[in-house]
Amino acid sequence: MTWVTGAQDSGFGVQHLPYGVFRIDGGEPRIGVRIGNLVLDLAGAEAADLVLAGGALCQPTLNAFLALGRPQWTAVRQRITELLTDPAHRTAVEPLLVPLDEVRMELPFEVADYVDFYSSEQHATNVGEIFRPGQPPLPPNWKHLPIGYHGRAGTVVVSGTPVIRPQGQRPSREGPVFGPSARLDVEAEVGFVVGVPSPLGRRVAAADFAHHVFGVVLLNDWSARDIQAWEYQPLGPFLGKSFATSVAAWVTPLDALRHAFVPAPEQDPPVADYLRDEPHLGLDLRLTVYWNGEPVSEPPFAGMYWTPAQQLAHLTVNGAALRTGDLYASGTVSGPRRDQVGSFLELTWGGAEPVTVAGAERTFLADGDTVTITATAPGPDGSVIALSAVTGTVLPAR
Amino acid sequence: MTWVTGAQDSGFGVQHLPYGVFRIDGGEPRIGVRIGNLVLDLAGAEAADLVLAGGALCQPTLNAFLALGRPQWTAVRQRITELLTDPAHRTAVEPLLVPLDEVRMELPFEVADYVDFYSSEQHATNVGEIFRPGQPPLPPNWKHLPIGYHGRAGTVVVSGTPVIRPQGQRPSREGPVFGPSARLDVEAEVGFVVGVPSPLGRRVAAADFAHHVFGVVLLNDWSARDIQAWEYQPLGPFLGKSFATSVAAWVTPLDALRHAFVPAPEQDPPVADYLRDEPHLGLDLRLTVYWNGEPVSEPPFAGMYWTPAQQLAHLTVNGAALRTGDLYASGTVSGPRRDQVGSFLELTWGGAEPVTVAGAERTFLADGDTVTITATAPGPDGSVIALSAVTGTVLPAR
Repeated sequence: MTWVTGAQDSGFGVQHLPYGVFRIDGGEPRIGVRIGNLVLDLAGAEAADLVLAGGALCQPTLNAFLALGRPQWTAVRQRITELLTDPAHRTAVEPLLVPLDEVRMELPFEVADYVDFYSSEQHATNVGEIFRPGQPPLPPNWKHLPIGYHGRAGTVVVSGTPVIRPQGQRPSREGPVFGPSARLDVEAEVGFVVGVPSPLGRRVAAADFAHHVFGVVLLNDWSARDIQAWEYQPLGPFLGKSFATSVAAWVTPLDALRHAFVPAPEQDPPVADYLRDEPHLGLDLRLTVYWNGEPVSEPPFAGMYWTPAQQLAHLTVNGAALRTGDLYASGTVSGPRRDQVGSFLELTWGGAEPVTVAGAERTFLADGDTVTITATAPGPDGSVIALSAVTGTVLPAR
Repeated sequence: MTWVTGAQDSGFGVQHLPYGVFRIDGGEPRIGVRIGNLVLDLAGAEAADLVLAGGALCQPTLNAFLALGRPQWTAVRQRITELLTDPAHRTAVEPLLVPLDEVRMELPFEVADYVDFYSSEQHATNVGEIFRPGQPPLPPNWKHLPIGYHGRAGTVVVSGTPVIRPQGQRPSREGPVFGPSARLDVEAEVGFVVGVPSPLGRRVAAADFAHHVFGVVLLNDWSARDIQAWEYQPLGPFLGKSFATSVAAWVTPLDALRHAFVPAPEQDPPVADYLRDEPHLGLDLRLTVYWNGEPVSEPPFAGMYWTPAQQLAHLTVNGAALRTGDLYASGTVSGPRRDQVGSFLELTWGGAEPVTVAGAERTFLADGDTVTITATAPGPDGSVIALSAVTGTVLPAR
């Protein structure tokens, strides 16, 4: 129980303690940890020898801290927990607490490579039915490997960054036309942040997931469906995705999600040996997608067919190296019901079945729309952890 | 004419002056420029005030120098040319020259995002005919936009780095099987190195190509055809490519290629406005692919359908930002004749028509094989520039 007033039941109590990078009044970026609606300035804490991380907490991004590895992650977390629970530390720590509304959040880590998976069976099925009606919705490889592709690391942005409507080529009956995307969409996803690198040529076992992965961020993989539909054959999505990918400002450590691991769906046919994870666990994250403040969907992450450990094992089975700051995302999270889908493509069935948002009939995103994704996870002793939201507002094309 | 003996007609005379990063005896990485078979230590030259670049030449990678922009790139090049041509500088400069065989080359720049295009009409046609016989070989979008996708920046390696045969799932009549790739291939390409960044949300015009792009490297996009064939639907190549992409150790500045720009093939149908480049120029680079020392193909880069300026304009038309260190590659360079193709997939027509290499009948790469790609370009006054080779040897799967 923390001595910070109001923090305990906020979803950001001492069970949680996510890391981020903040600025005050345009000052230098500093690493902090969130407690309730306050930020504990960890750069200040390390400078005052209240917490020791070899200087890694005095950096402008989380990368040096991410590279330290699990024993250090756990030690720092334990120390922060002490500082925020033992009243003896209150006098020293209180001056290092900054109200959230006085800070501006930055991208918490420098993204090395960004990979996006496609691991919700329901989402892949929905997309298949919408785009290829009458054909088997899942491609033949889908249940044999977690399909993924590389995205653009340089356009990963922090929650709150406006999203400028992309322009591009889109198909029409008379051939391709150029202009602003008319089918701008969201993809509600969960991203995994790699801390500990691996050398080129050595695969990472699924069992080593927690050795390499530091934590989790909510992620919105903004998608221009019309641009994507025209460009994606045969080499996959490119400009339909690369204009912006938003991530939450606060990275939730895996250590905070120990109570959220649950058995993942059974896999049939059996997977290749390198993809077997024992125990086979997903994460019970319950997402909510808000469209202009109105909840329109509640995607359940626990139902994902491929687990994050399997995704990591697949990503490296060819010998690909991991780097600190690698980010891989789950793919759109969709459950079996229409009010559980993670994209508006699915919510409106390719735009054919509009939904009512704040009294207006809607299909894809209009300029000025704001989409926010939140999630909760079970914490210890019946507590609830609130993952940091990812939000963005659409600006008109330039 | 340089005073460095033997340099002038080596392909690495003062017309060329490519930049790289070297180490001597395991020392710190240093920036250098190649002249003949020597390296001019630019870190030493800047420390001695022989050349001024605000400290950018005293860094462990080229990135800070790349970020300076064209006026500085040109000024530094002019100064280096002076140093290497005016005998008055010989006494000061000679101690900074290191024989190439005494250095070990490093990756010359930290790769930000890596994009791979697919811009040879002949290559795309060949691949279409091999993989989709009886269907139109080019996808319908091919002549409307330069198709591309993001690759793995973290596995871009410098020439000479061994390439470990990747393992993965590949298709068989009984379903997917796991093991070492049995169809390991090369792709002879030309890579473009971005120096000057661009902000998110602002497209880069084709006319601004030379403002943003610093130079050129030969590139081998190693490809496991069997892994790729099974995984690539619907989101494109992933593990079939991400195990290694080799680039030359020396980056040839665009300034060295002024005499290599030639009219690019006419484009029909007409391209969208944002893809119009006036003048519409390609580069007359003549590649040679050596398989275990034997030249097996001479891909002509001048015949590429999409130009590097068009690729840059396409890459950013959706508002995607550029970062210093972005690398984009042309796609496999193939000419119309069988002895002009840039992959062994094409050279052996999908493995159906083996070729004889050093007396043995061969289709794809065997362990121990070495592939080297070289290229020449026309320089001033009838001189010839030799692009730095990219080479790699295949090691057995681990």
